[in-house]
Amino acid sequence: MDNCIFCKIAAGGIPSNTVYEDEIFRVILDIAPANPGHCLILPKMHAADIFELDEALVGKAAVLAKKIASAVKKAVKADGINIIQNNGAAAGQSVSHYHVHVVPRFNGDRVQLNTEGKALSDEEFAKIKEAIIAEL
Amino acid sequence: MDNCIFCKIAAGGIPSNTVYEDEIFRVILDIAPANPGHCLILPKMHAADIFELDEALVGKAAVLAKKIASAVKKAVKADGINIIQNNGAAAGQSVSHYHVHVVPRFNGDRVQLNTEGKALSDEEFAKIKEAIIAEL
Repeated sequence: MDNCIFCKIAAGGIPSNTVYEDEIFRVILDIAPANPGHCLILPKMHAADIFELDEALVGKAAVLAKKIASAVKKAVKADGINIIQNNGAAAGQSVSHYHVHVVPRFNGDRVQLNTEGKALSDEEFAKIKEAIIAEL
Repeated sequence: MDNCIFCKIAAGGIPSNTVYEDEIFRVILDIAPANPGHCLILPKMHAADIFELDEALVGKAAVLAKKIASAVKKAVKADGINIIQNNGAAAGQSVSHYHVHVVPRFNGDRVQLNTEGKALSDEEFAKIKEAIIAEL
């Protein structure tokens, strides 16, 4: 897609620290890593987010993320790994081209990631549950 | 696995707000949601993390995450969606049974998720790149 920086990087038109490439994906080092070894998995075909990406490619990206996670964990001797995929500016997606973050983590590092919140009432849970089921 | 709470929930031995179930997975509402609609995808077979989970199931979990993300986004009218999978206590994994978070996000919400860090020197990037390639 014109004017998509990740399309250009994935196609090799803009230089990157590529650690892996095949016909479908390019995997690069994030230029502003949360920790050293932070990688981004980019499909070469443009899709803004997971909703636009074909489900077969979503599956392949996840399998590749497992492979990359294993290599990164060993390469930087990480204590843990986050695999994160953000959709929409509200979710922290900064480039509108689907990408998967593979983030090495170290005990006590400063990466901010907190998905814990507060319990809802039983009635609130039941209402949300039914609303989701209705959309499935 | 004995004493694994997510094995018990996935098997239906402990009640949960289940929004989806098939032979391989159960999807539940997180009991302490980052935002209302926060779901967890649990494989019924025990695997501590992505490194222990068969890659075919990693792919299937991702495809299911796309389906759940679409439903959650509509159900709670979210502005965005994070798909997060944590491996290891250092990465914020609180239960040692592989699970995928599907987190609805709203503009200006209080969820903490920041994977941006600082650029490294060209030499540092090159060294890490080679270390990862050597493990692939």
